[in-house]
Amino acid sequence: MTHAPARTVWLNGQFMPEVQAKLPIFDRGLLFADAVYEGLGVLDGQIIDFPHHMTRLRRSLSELSMPNLYSDPAAEAALHTALIDLITRNNVSEGFLYLHITRGEHDRDYLYPEGLQPNIFAFTQETHDAPTIRLASAPDIRWARRDIKSTNLLGQVMAKDIARKADADEALMVDRDGYVTECGAMSFFMIKDAALYARPLLGELLPGITRQTMLRVAGEQGLRIIEDRYKLENTYAADEAFATGASSYLQPVVEIDGHQIGNGTPGPITKMLRAAYLDAIRTEIASRRP
Amino acid sequence: MTHAPARTVWLNGQFMPEVQAKLPIFDRGLLFADAVYEGLGVLDGQIIDFPHHMTRLRRSLSELSMPNLYSDPAAEAALHTALIDLITRNNVSEGFLYLHITRGEHDRDYLYPEGLQPNIFAFTQETHDAPTIRLASAPDIRWARRDIKSTNLLGQVMAKDIARKADADEALMVDRDGYVTECGAMSFFMIKDAALYARPLLGELLPGITRQTMLRVAGEQGLRIIEDRYKLENTYAADEAFATGASSYLQPVVEIDGHQIGNGTPGPITKMLRAAYLDAIRTEIASRRP
Repeated sequence: MTHAPARTVWLNGQFMPEVQAKLPIFDRGLLFADAVYEGLGVLDGQIIDFPHHMTRLRRSLSELSMPNLYSDPAAEAALHTALIDLITRNNVSEGFLYLHITRGEHDRDYLYPEGLQPNIFAFTQETHDAPTIRLASAPDIRWARRDIKSTNLLGQVMAKDIARKADADEALMVDRDGYVTECGAMSFFMIKDAALYARPLLGELLPGITRQTMLRVAGEQGLRIIEDRYKLENTYAADEAFATGASSYLQPVVEIDGHQIGNGTPGPITKMLRAAYLDAIRTEIASRRP
Repeated sequence: MTHAPARTVWLNGQFMPEVQAKLPIFDRGLLFADAVYEGLGVLDGQIIDFPHHMTRLRRSLSELSMPNLYSDPAAEAALHTALIDLITRNNVSEGFLYLHITRGEHDRDYLYPEGLQPNIFAFTQETHDAPTIRLASAPDIRWARRDIKSTNLLGQVMAKDIARKADADEALMVDRDGYVTECGAMSFFMIKDAALYARPLLGELLPGITRQTMLRVAGEQGLRIIEDRYKLENTYAADEAFATGASSYLQPVVEIDGHQIGNGTPGPITKMLRAAYLDAIRTEIASRRP
């Protein structure tokens, strides 16, 4: 992931060179991680699943009693226009788009006053995904409100660091009862006896947009879907496994804690689902073109 | 807590007006709450328990594999000089001093590269503590690494918001087994039958510096100290209760969830401990004067 200092970013309604984009040290996002975000995938210069991301974003804002910025369809359309403009200015055909909203700036006080002006910014980023990934398990030490997409992400940072130290590409997080939750920054799925296993959300996982679309696509493909908890040991014995995320779509998992998954290469159902997912989002994007 | 726009703040070694103090939107403190901090009390223009805060700060940095900035006594002394300069420039005799260290700025990636330059800032703030406080209970939804003083503080923000909505001044957080942990931004103590009850740290609480000094002072005063867990219901039946924090020292608790504590005014042991604590820190500060 290279740094592109010539990037144009978007901050509080203005486009500017990234080196000029700064927030006050009194921003509550810095002081308290009092901020929400969305990570969006870009394909063919369009934003994948934009309406679903907006639904999740509105819920995150609402759960934190932050201003309901995009309840008006015109406000959502204006945001979409600005983000597409940002994508175009940065000449991004395929990549990652990040949108961040903090509660605003004020003297340091856990109790936020009413009427703060949110700070809102967005930037694009290149993605460089490996064709397959290896996972290493790490304890899931996150807070209880994983259903809110907030910037309280240090638990994930630490999990991914544990994975890196184990020479893996991603973390597979395990709760204190020994059940798998999800990857450090992606949703996790496994396939056993031709069924797709996904842990139900129940507030214990981040509600991944790609996860949601993938479950729909898998259902359309006639796959049997089992939404249940499972232990780390079950993943070692999976026939196939993969992780999903906004910008990397579906990444085949070929190893977990040194255990080879299947024959160590992407399995047939994984490959079928990746193709079906890409078809589905290309169809969805095309349907939005004027 | 009023905003003082004429404040001078300290950012990466420079003093500047607060309106000029900004960090890049790519700072990892903003994107991932990948940052640590210390909240320090100021009394008579001096920093209370500075060496203890530095010990805790070094541990937070170490646990996050952040650069060991103040391992050298000369570096610690230089930081102390800068912070005292900041206190003097802002003419603070008694108040709050905040110090924040982020891992630095980079393209958004959970995995941090080696060699990032930390962003470091500090500011002073006025304090306006009420003579007594009322608590309301709230679920403790924080992550598992409460022993690290990081900016992953949204759980505390939400707990304090619950308390405010219950017309209380502070939250009393309760874990999922029904045991009290601590207040939203302070340590909690209760007194029953002339014994001081404090929940042991065990990685489940933030290791409060004022808490630590208070326990030492209570021991010196001959109080019996019981370090054990206790349930919310036990606090309702306490003879006295109080909360401690860096800038507010000891605040008597007179009500919890609408239950009056003792006779609804600060109890005798609470008053004795507050006086003994202020004596102890004044003695410590005086001993550091040249």
